[in-house]
Order: sequence, then C-alpha cells, then structure tokens
Amino acid sequence: MNETIYDVCIIGGGPAGVAGGIYAARKRMRTALVTETFGGQSLVSAEIQNWIGDIALSGLDLAKRLETHLKAQSGIDIIEGERVTAVLRDSGGLFRCLLGGGIAPTEASAKGGRTITARAVLVASGSRRRRLGIPGEDRYDGKGVAFCATCDAPLFGGKPVAVVGGGNSGLESVVDLLPYASKVYLLHRGQVLKGDKVTEEKIAAHPNATIIRGATPVEILGDAFVTGLTYRLADGATATLDVAGVFVEVGSIPNSELVASLVERTHWGEIIVDHRTQRTSCEGVWAAGDVATGLYKQNNISAGESITAILNIYDSMHGIVRPAVAREKPPGT
Amino acid sequence: MNETIYDVCIIGGGPAGVAGGIYAARKRMRTALVTETFGGQSLVSAEIQNWIGDIALSGLDLAKRLETHLKAQSGIDIIEGERVTAVLRDSGGLFRCLLGGGIAPTEASAKGGRTITARAVLVASGSRRRRLGIPGEDRYDGKGVAFCATCDAPLFGGKPVAVVGGGNSGLESVVDLLPYASKVYLLHRGQVLKGDKVTEEKIAAHPNATIIRGATPVEILGDAFVTGLTYRLADGATATLDVAGVFVEVGSIPNSELVASLVERTHWGEIIVDHRTQRTSCEGVWAAGDVATGLYKQNNISAGESITAILNIYDSMHGIVRPAVAREKPPGT
Repeated sequence: MNETIYDVCIIGGGPAGVAGGIYAARKRMRTALVTETFGGQSLVSAEIQNWIGDIALSGLDLAKRLETHLKAQSGIDIIEGERVTAVLRDSGGLFRCLLGGGIAPTEASAKGGRTITARAVLVASGSRRRRLGIPGEDRYDGKGVAFCATCDAPLFGGKPVAVVGGGNSGLESVVDLLPYASKVYLLHRGQVLKGDKVTEEKIAAHPNATIIRGATPVEILGDAFVTGLTYRLADGATATLDVAGVFVEVGSIPNSELVASLVERTHWGEIIVDHRTQRTSCEGVWAAGDVATGLYKQNNISAGESITAILNIYDSMHGIVRPAVAREKPPGT
Repeated sequence: MNETIYDVCIIGGGPAGVAGGIYAARKRMRTALVTETFGGQSLVSAEIQNWIGDIALSGLDLAKRLETHLKAQSGIDIIEGERVTAVLRDSGGLFRCLLGGGIAPTEASAKGGRTITARAVLVASGSRRRRLGIPGEDRYDGKGVAFCATCDAPLFGGKPVAVVGGGNSGLESVVDLLPYASKVYLLHRGQVLKGDKVTEEKIAAHPNATIIRGATPVEILGDAFVTGLTYRLADGATATLDVAGVFVEVGSIPNSELVASLVERTHWGEIIVDHRTQRTSCEGVWAAGDVATGLYKQNNISAGESITAILNIYDSMHGIVRPAVAREKPPGT
C-alpha cells in the first residue's frame, strides 16, 4: 500500500481552513484539507458587511468565493463532505486523522476505516452553537425553538418571538426577525449588550422591539408548538412572555474534541495557542480561528491566524527559526 | 475652540488601517483615520493571488476596494493625503497626533499646526522599503536603480537586469521582469530562497533567469546610467554582472518612528505587541500589521490583527475585561 504522507492536514473549510489551504498550496506543501462544507458559521448569514474589501455579501456568496479561491490552487487534496473525528499521533511521530461520518462520507470512512496521515495538523474546525439547556428546548426544537433567524424568520410572520442572547448574533437575529414578527423580545443575562452599537441603536429605536436585561430563561412552554418563554430576573421574580418562537443565540462551543487527547484546552474547550505562531501545546499541531483561544471570533481574524499558522508550519518544515522578540538596544550601546 | 476628542485615531490606510476603521465605525466609536494613500505596500503589485476570497486582483483594485468599503461607513472622519509625524501623550492622558507633510497636506498641517486628539491610538502605519546602503545606490536611483519591478519592468526591455533579495518580493520581481528583460539575475545573500516554492520553481525553469546564491552586493557601477553590479561571494571572490538595472528587494523598515518616544520596539524598529490583544507597552496605544512584531507580513494577517486591536480598544473603553487563558480542569476535579 502506497500511503500518502502529507506535509499538513488542514481540518476545516471556513475562512481559517480555506486561507490556510491557499497559502499551503502556494508554498508547495503537500496538503490535505478535510471539510464537510465551505464558509464556516457565516454560511447562514443573510448579509455580511464586515468581510474586509466587500461592502456587503451573503454568507453563501462568501462561502462560494472561499471555495472557488481554494479550488483554483493546484496540488491540494480536498476531502469534501467528510468529518475528522479524531487525530492521533503514531509511534513514528506522524499524525493520523480519522475520518468518520460527515454529511457525505465515502463508504470507507463511514466504516471508520479511512485515515489521512500528515507530518503536521492545522485544526481550523471552528465552533458550533451553544444551547440553553432548559426544559422545553429539546422538545420544541424545530417546533418554535430555532437557532438561525436568517433561515427561519419568515416562519414567524405576524407572531411574537423572543431572542435569547445579547451579543452580535442575538442582536442581528432581532434585526432579521423585525420585518416578519409582530413583536421581538431580546433577553440578555447581563445589563450591557455586547454587540455592535449600530445594531443596538437600530433595535432600541424600533417600536416592535423590547430589550429585557438581567433575564435568565428558565423554561420554554408549549403544546404542539412553542407558546411561551419563562425567565427569571436578578431579584428572583419570574415572568412569562407569550411567544410562538424562541431563537437561541448564546454563543458557541469550540469543535476541539477531535484533538482532546493531544492538546491543552481552556475550560471552554478552546485550543490554547501561542498567538504569535498559532502553535498548540503539542508539537506538530497548530490551531486557528474560532476553535482556538483568539479573543474575538471574526472571519478576517480567522483567516489571518490560519495564514500565520501555515507560514509557521512551513518555517518549521524547513528548519527556519525566527528570532524571538528582542527589545530595542538602549541608546548608546 | 471646540476640539473633537476621538475615541480612537487610526494611523494608516493599508489593509490594517482600513479593517480597523470599518470595525471602529460599526462599533460607533468616534474615529479618525489618517492616511496618505490607500492599499499599503501592495498598491504597486500587478497581481495579488493571495487576498483570501479573490483568485486574483491588482494592487490598485485591492486599494480601491478597501477605500470604498471604508468610505461606505458613516461616522468616521478620514484625513486623506496627510501624514502623522509624531504621537505625544498630554498630561491629561490624551494622545495628540501631529500632522505634518504627506502628499497633500492642508496649509495648517503643512505648517505643523494641526493635531488629532484621541483617547486611544491604533498604529497601522506599515513599513517602507529597505535600501542596500552600497556605493552607487543613491547616485543611480531612478537611473537604473529601482524599487518596484511592477512599475519599472517595461523600462528594461531587451536589457539585462539584476534583482537583489531572495524573499517573495525578490522572486516576484524576477517574474515581473522576465517578459521584458533579456536576462534576469537573482542575487540572494543566503543559500535557501525564502519566498514561495511555486514562484521559485517558475524562475528556476526559465532559460533567461539565473539565481546566484551566497552573493552580497558591494557596488553599483555606471556612467549616466547603471552599467553593472559588483558582488562578493562567501569565499571572498568578487564578480561583476553587466546589467542596466538593479532592483532592490531586501525587506522593509517599520514606520514606527512616530511613536518612538511612547512604545517599546525591537532592534528592527517593529512595535512590540501582545499578540492576543495587539496592545503595546504604552497604555492607550495599540499596533497592528507590518509595523508590529507579527512574524509574517501579509495583507490578511494585517487586517485580522487590526480588527483584534479595535475590538480590544472597544472592550477597554467599556470596561469589559476578557478572562485570561485558563487551562482545562484536570479530570475529576
């Protein structure tokens, strides 16, 4: 059996994975990239206004452009529609990326039999949505409980809905819902919303939007479909909103389980990286984008981090050592 | 006098400055951005193939798109065609950015009388080209000594030329020159070229290109125009190439002098930053892109760093403290 040993296996097809793939191919590194889909979590955005260089484009457009740019490179093997379930290091120091499942697995990987072997791994697997973990959330999932306002807003025409979460994704969900819903409540656990001011102002000025601060959801009520959301305020008082929909926008969980046995992670599951090189605690494994400890999760930040990672992998392959940061010499020395 | 106090003054109009400006405006921060031109050093690139999301675009196109995206934001004051010569901190802790010179200064700033006052400063002023510092370089500047192959290649039709520098910019200059020059020599001080393999292979395969490794330029010869380039090899032997042009591509000098009195810098003049937040050693001053200590100088990396900086400035304005990176709890605790 003639097994291919890649220089690097990139896991992910969002802005981080794609940026890394493009740079790796241009560096003539022998590269495999595994991803279920392209575009990352922005795929479901109706309109992105902060992808630098484009005034506005849809998540689908961004995904398509990333995919097209990546596929214009030669010398990169793209394994699409599949998922890496675990990365292991063998006794020879090579990494084995196990394929299993995904949205369109080959027969071999569905059986768990296929692996990608590489000298280095770049984990750019992003994150997934966090859930509330309260009664009714699972039961009414798809029956009023929703996780994507862009996708589902039109289903709530003329009905009152609640959005849970005071970050950008919560605020943007409110904006997406206002053209459809008769009323939109925004519930935020804290007192200060954490998204863009420009969006907050738009919401605050809208007659059909109400912001409820200091509110913790406790239960989603319903019969066949959602009928209400009960929440608790800081003073212990509870109240129930009559709503037909609850949009959950309470953050993300890093997709880092696949390297849990290899690298150090935070309490929240982010892969701990050195932010100058994107190296993890495991030699040979780099991480970039939403799966890593970067402070802010943004498409352009992910792309930049991943390029840094690939250039650092390239340096490491070629024995290039970059000098550590040294202070300026004091004057006169 | 009603002086505007900005939340942030962004210095620079390359990918870093523009990305920061867009994010600052969207965060409704009171923002000033000062730049002579848009697009940064890529402005002179004939074709950029690694701006993520675009298979290919010219430096001019990228500059135009950055400018257009920035100017589509409301609530940002753009001071164009001018240069910040120094940043000082006043006794009240505010920063004064002194305007002086630039390609199109107003009368007031030409006199050195105009300042921008801000609570925070993001230095995204990039870098400029390094020179060889050998005899003949200044004398024949514009008479055969050139710093931009994209710009000047057509002037050397049918003539032999030399490119000095074995990084990406040197390699790309060779590619730019080959359609015009009768012969292109690439001189590199070291033994291993440091640019993209794909470009190196293209050059190595071209009959009109010759790579000379271990070569240190010592003098540029000429009469009215350049006639030759003398270099020394590692063993001390010298040789002279008969060339009509010498393209200098030996790296960059960070444009960090304007904050020399405020922040810590490296031997090379890069502003030392914390790579998770882009903070400098001076509270209230952030830096991003080619002027800072990032390992790799790439457009997408600069954009990402600058977005991190702006979001960190925003956090700092609003008293938001992000948790430090904490390790995962050991199993069983």
